[in-house]
Amino acid sequence: MERSARPTLAVVGATGAVGTVMLQILSQHADIWGEIRLVASPRSAGRKLTVRGEEVEVVALDEAAFEGVDVAMFDVPDEVAAEWAPRAAAHGAVVVDNSAAFRMDPQVPLVVPEVNPHAARIRPRGIVAGPNCTTLSMIVAVGALHAEFGLRELVVSSYQAVSGAGRAGVETLRRQLSLVAGTELGTSPGDVRRAVGDRTGPFPEPVALNVVPWAGSLRDEGWSSEEMKVRDESRKILGLPRLKVTATCVRVPVVTTHSLTVHARFEGEVTVDRTREILATAPGVVLFDDPEAGEFPTPADAVGTDPTWVGRVRRALDDPTALDLFVCGDNLRKGAALNTAQIAELVAAELTGA
Amino acid sequence: MERSARPTLAVVGATGAVGTVMLQILSQHADIWGEIRLVASPRSAGRKLTVRGEEVEVVALDEAAFEGVDVAMFDVPDEVAAEWAPRAAAHGAVVVDNSAAFRMDPQVPLVVPEVNPHAARIRPRGIVAGPNCTTLSMIVAVGALHAEFGLRELVVSSYQAVSGAGRAGVETLRRQLSLVAGTELGTSPGDVRRAVGDRTGPFPEPVALNVVPWAGSLRDEGWSSEEMKVRDESRKILGLPRLKVTATCVRVPVVTTHSLTVHARFEGEVTVDRTREILATAPGVVLFDDPEAGEFPTPADAVGTDPTWVGRVRRALDDPTALDLFVCGDNLRKGAALNTAQIAELVAAELTGA
Repeated sequence: MERSARPTLAVVGATGAVGTVMLQILSQHADIWGEIRLVASPRSAGRKLTVRGEEVEVVALDEAAFEGVDVAMFDVPDEVAAEWAPRAAAHGAVVVDNSAAFRMDPQVPLVVPEVNPHAARIRPRGIVAGPNCTTLSMIVAVGALHAEFGLRELVVSSYQAVSGAGRAGVETLRRQLSLVAGTELGTSPGDVRRAVGDRTGPFPEPVALNVVPWAGSLRDEGWSSEEMKVRDESRKILGLPRLKVTATCVRVPVVTTHSLTVHARFEGEVTVDRTREILATAPGVVLFDDPEAGEFPTPADAVGTDPTWVGRVRRALDDPTALDLFVCGDNLRKGAALNTAQIAELVAAELTGA
Repeated sequence: MERSARPTLAVVGATGAVGTVMLQILSQHADIWGEIRLVASPRSAGRKLTVRGEEVEVVALDEAAFEGVDVAMFDVPDEVAAEWAPRAAAHGAVVVDNSAAFRMDPQVPLVVPEVNPHAARIRPRGIVAGPNCTTLSMIVAVGALHAEFGLRELVVSSYQAVSGAGRAGVETLRRQLSLVAGTELGTSPGDVRRAVGDRTGPFPEPVALNVVPWAGSLRDEGWSSEEMKVRDESRKILGLPRLKVTATCVRVPVVTTHSLTVHARFEGEVTVDRTREILATAPGVVLFDDPEAGEFPTPADAVGTDPTWVGRVRRALDDPTALDLFVCGDNLRKGAALNTAQIAELVAAELTGA
């Protein structure tokens, strides 16, 4: 591509829950793109979607879709990404992939622009990956603290929104809430289970008026794939291959925005004052932490916004090297579409010499 | 009291959310009591409640209510307990108090019958306290593991039910869910907040379709009173005054049953196999842990039942001395009414020489 020409962008998976947010973000951000091509499965081809105020017709995912494309943002199932990202790269596009297919590939950088932007420049396969939404909900804040204090260990528990499981997750929660609305709301055993029956959608158990300690598939020794992602991805993004990480991932009846409790242990003593200074000035972070004034983040605050919201900043009472935080991040924005768009913008700036 | 006579029991706070469950439990357990006297605030006096299949008239809380009482179970606000528990004790009753008023009093034992039953025998003030419902949701399982492995550190995060805030908490969630039922359910910023407005009841923020990282009142250095209770009470019950404990307490839209993620570090290496053996045989614990078969505890499983449900048993991948668990316990049963009744039964057995 000639320097300073406006790059062509393909959005692959444009009709999905994350794709919808990608189009919103492309309409809101500075318009650096030439053509924006919308790509989806053949059954969605011909649909018209609005981006940058204009209607654009969706084209089917095939080889022709990548002709002349400089950057391709992918949000599709892992197996679709595994097949099509290398094909798009073979056409000369830099692929920014939000699936799990390439995250742990040593030839593919795993990038969060606020934390490790330079990693995006070295991409032997022509592919740059973005992390899972649960990792993303905390890694910007944790990365800023690591840069100052040196991270040694993370113990995190998640409160994950149903939209992390896509549109089906949201519809499942809606339907379950309507089923339990007329009941005694789970005050006697099995109310929720009886009302919901096997209509659990993408979740293994009812999620309305319940919390479900499971996300993803079963991995070795009882860990879920979601928990392993938090560990593996945090290590790779932070460049700490031996970082101690324990995650327990739990689905909660929240539509959008993942929350996490974070217990982070560092190389030496930390102070709350310095922690607040770091978080107050870190790009992509909002410090919202004044419990005396009733200020701490909740999903209702963070939903629809870009930053990671951080509150409940405390130093562990029995360990002066450890901090406890509560963080919230919109899993569809920074957790998926926004991070992908940010990486695409980094790559575009590099390609155009901007 | 003469040995082997049936002791007289007073239930103070009989009309509350926990009191209601106390009466159910007294009707289900072996009938060891002589008279059961129901006591509540003067405005509830004269109401009739059913216990052991019989209607009993509620009497007002005054000195006369404790005449001839051998054991008094209290579930009333802290300030009411602070005033009336010593008065009841002065009448010769052994008070089993479920409030926070006496838990950290060095002259008052803090008892969980499965963990430290003998502590109930030494009660210089005539008062025995039970812990907070959040501590109780995990301490039976943690106590069993401590007895074998020697506990060094706890990092816990809670998923606390709204009934922990009493009937007002349950009514608030119900009303909020009906307010948001017709909306787009929090997929755009502030949906929930707009629908709910300031109708947040006993909670600082909307709890429907949200999670709220706050329970109790503000203590030093940003900690909530609920988080301090988990630390202080765990140390006292386990007899480990220097145990490292970090808790982050979060309210979730579940009616009844608290859940917690538990990261527990022990003196030496632990194994999952031995952990399962301990939990499978520990009194008051149900091991429900086969993720391959979709088995892990949720509030919908545990609500209305007595034991602590434990699942997601994993050894920390980066620390062979640490275990990760997910536990669920009905906050109105073991978390409050059941533990109080179990202590009262311990005391009754001692008094009657049974």
